Amino acid sequence: MLSALDLARRIDAGELKSLQAIELAAEVIAAREGEVQAFAALDLDAARTAASEQRQGPLRGQSIGFKDVFDTADLPTAYGSALYAGHRPATDAALVAMARQAGGITLGKTVTAAFAHLDPGPTRNPHRLTHTPGGSSSGSAAAVAAGMLSIAIGTQTGGSTIRPASFCGVAAFKPSFNLLPTVGVKCVSWHLDTVGLFAAGVADVAFAAAALTGRDLRVDDRSEGPPRIGVLREPPWPQAGVDMLAAVETAIDAAGRAGAPCADLTLPPIFSEMFKAHATIHAYEAARAFAFENDRHRDALGPALLKLIDDGQAISHDAYDDARALTSRARRQTADLFEDIDIILSPSAPGVAPEGLSTTGTSTFNRVWTLMGVPCVNIPGLSDASGLPLGVQAIGRFGRDRQTLQAGLFIESVIARRNR
Amino acid sequence: MLSALDLARRIDAGELKSLQAIELAAEVIAAREGEVQAFAALDLDAARTAASEQRQGPLRGQSIGFKDVFDTADLPTAYGSALYAGHRPATDAALVAMARQAGGITLGKTVTAAFAHLDPGPTRNPHRLTHTPGGSSSGSAAAVAAGMLSIAIGTQTGGSTIRPASFCGVAAFKPSFNLLPTVGVKCVSWHLDTVGLFAAGVADVAFAAAALTGRDLRVDDRSEGPPRIGVLREPPWPQAGVDMLAAVETAIDAAGRAGAPCADLTLPPIFSEMFKAHATIHAYEAARAFAFENDRHRDALGPALLKLIDDGQAISHDAYDDARALTSRARRQTADLFEDIDIILSPSAPGVAPEGLSTTGTSTFNRVWTLMGVPCVNIPGLSDASGLPLGVQAIGRFGRDRQTLQAGLFIESVIARRNR
Repeated sequence: MLSALDLARRIDAGELKSLQAIELAAEVIAAREGEVQAFAALDLDAARTAASEQRQGPLRGQSIGFKDVFDTADLPTAYGSALYAGHRPATDAALVAMARQAGGITLGKTVTAAFAHLDPGPTRNPHRLTHTPGGSSSGSAAAVAAGMLSIAIGTQTGGSTIRPASFCGVAAFKPSFNLLPTVGVKCVSWHLDTVGLFAAGVADVAFAAAALTGRDLRVDDRSEGPPRIGVLREPPWPQAGVDMLAAVETAIDAAGRAGAPCADLTLPPIFSEMFKAHATIHAYEAARAFAFENDRHRDALGPALLKLIDDGQAISHDAYDDARALTSRARRQTADLFEDIDIILSPSAPGVAPEGLSTTGTSTFNRVWTLMGVPCVNIPGLSDASGLPLGVQAIGRFGRDRQTLQAGLFIESVIARRNR
Repeated sequence: MLSALDLARRIDAGELKSLQAIELAAEVIAAREGEVQAFAALDLDAARTAASEQRQGPLRGQSIGFKDVFDTADLPTAYGSALYAGHRPATDAALVAMARQAGGITLGKTVTAAFAHLDPGPTRNPHRLTHTPGGSSSGSAAAVAAGMLSIAIGTQTGGSTIRPASFCGVAAFKPSFNLLPTVGVKCVSWHLDTVGLFAAGVADVAFAAAALTGRDLRVDDRSEGPPRIGVLREPPWPQAGVDMLAAVETAIDAAGRAGAPCADLTLPPIFSEMFKAHATIHAYEAARAFAFENDRHRDALGPALLKLIDDGQAISHDAYDDARALTSRARRQTADLFEDIDIILSPSAPGVAPEGLSTTGTSTFNRVWTLMGVPCVNIPGLSDASGLPLGVQAIGRFGRDRQTLQAGLFIESVIARRNR
């Protein structure tokens, strides 16, 4: 994989030019894109031109891809649907322009499940081509995993960032809600849609977040003590498969040996209602967000999206208002969960990437945290016996994004030391 | 003016066909648009075709205009800027499609101050053409005031719905934050942008909100007791001009005579910080929302928007995070304000529409309530000695949109009775 931080250091040191860094990505794309199919659009010539302009900024030389739900003025934007094939927006999404202002080079658009929901795209898992890369940010996760991009941007409304990162063995960061702007991103649910970032390791994804926002989010340049970890092992928390449970225990064990206290955590009863609250808000808002497509182009929508819209239209206003009120209460209780711990450690997904490309897996371990708006980090480094990646997830307190990334880096490090 | 409710009743009774209702608007447009200049785009032929298709739904026969920050697939969308002249989005904003699904006929796009900020458009106040209609939803307010539309849709980030409604003498409703979707609306500030509605009277604007959303928001079909009113007369609440203060006292007096108890209300000290918090959030988010325009087209942006963007870039992340945290605290205290009252009664603006078209007036009486996300209703019916409108504002508790409209209707009625 291309470590964004490593590229930045080599460029800063004058060992690598921006254009050379882009060629590193281009070489891998030439070798692997044919089988991985991570890109919905690609313009390497434009990227080379931009890179040779010697732009300044912390992201110079970084090869960046945006999930194809971000509007781009210079690249087609199809939202993963034939309905918008060849569509060229007049405006860049805010984050696309922010990446350019920070010196980043956008190579292309990455495959998304149709409209960032469940109807899958063509992308394959670079670790095993017969398996899904996960979704809906399929291409973003796969492109970083294959070494075709140093930074990829996706979104998460249910589990669309953390899950594919887990399946593809890359780091991902779903920040606190609204930390990264969704302006110019095709909307599914305005209370849930969250921008997510992908990079090789946790320090890389933190570097990307810091560079995009200008916020103090880097974790490579400081060291902090071991995080206090809370572990969810009980219902209502869902169960993961044997391999994933073993991976979580491995992470807990390695963290414990390195001095991180781990305590069992029980979620308050309100959390058992949060799965339904998420489903209610997701569908109700999607039915409105896709009012145009539903009114004019129903025939062009996939079965999963149609079901979401129809479900959403059947939800009463009262049920939606209740779900939002319940969510507000649960968010306050979530803050209390972090009184004595820095992160919750959890599976990122039920297990490894499922075989086949007809589904992108489930977001059981992600949806509630998306709804809570709290920062989540997928930590790569573990795998099953066959070598398929298993990600574990650090979940932090709202607004404590750097601390959550720091804890993720700690766990990533102790896992890596154990692997050696 | 065209009362939406009156049109709906006549159409329901079979006295009026949809096409005839649209012709009522078209006749006024032919007579007055030349001097008022409320429209950025207009397609009466398409509207006539749509109206003759005999669509069903509660908004059939209603002549609707959308502020030109709403994306429309069938009409150009320029966001009030030459930069986007002739731009034709691929998609309708959610509310545009929802209006169509409810049977409404979109006649055109209404003039907005550039990018829904302060750089004014050409629209004149129908009550006196040498005065501003207010902004930024200038055309929406003016078109309803002139009788050219029965329903107009705008937005409010500072005071862009309530203020022009006050200046133009029409009813307006800024609902609780996120009640009406902003999907497909050009973003200025994701924590502030709120859709607003304009119609002839309070019952009309409530009818429009109910028809667009399917929610129980109508107020014409029931009667409730007089609202309990809280009145702001002290600092830190800003001062209005003599005429406006007299208008508010007139409303209080008329409401009191009709049995509505009115008590003085003092805002908690945190409110004195909310003007600054609004400015901080507004500018910080605008600097990001307009990242593309600022990066690629700075020369095409007006002076007020450039200042907003530059101010926003100078705001530290900490100052922004603090403003948001302070806002959350103030929102909880706002809920407490409504323990013993149903609405706060306040000026909608400092006074009548200022003379000239170079500014759109100030949002002093609106910004804090936009930030609090609470429902606000502009109540028309009062004016200064020269006949220029003076609106008073009913401000309700978050989520109590119908009750706020109901209170607005009560005050509108007692003012009208007094005028007779």
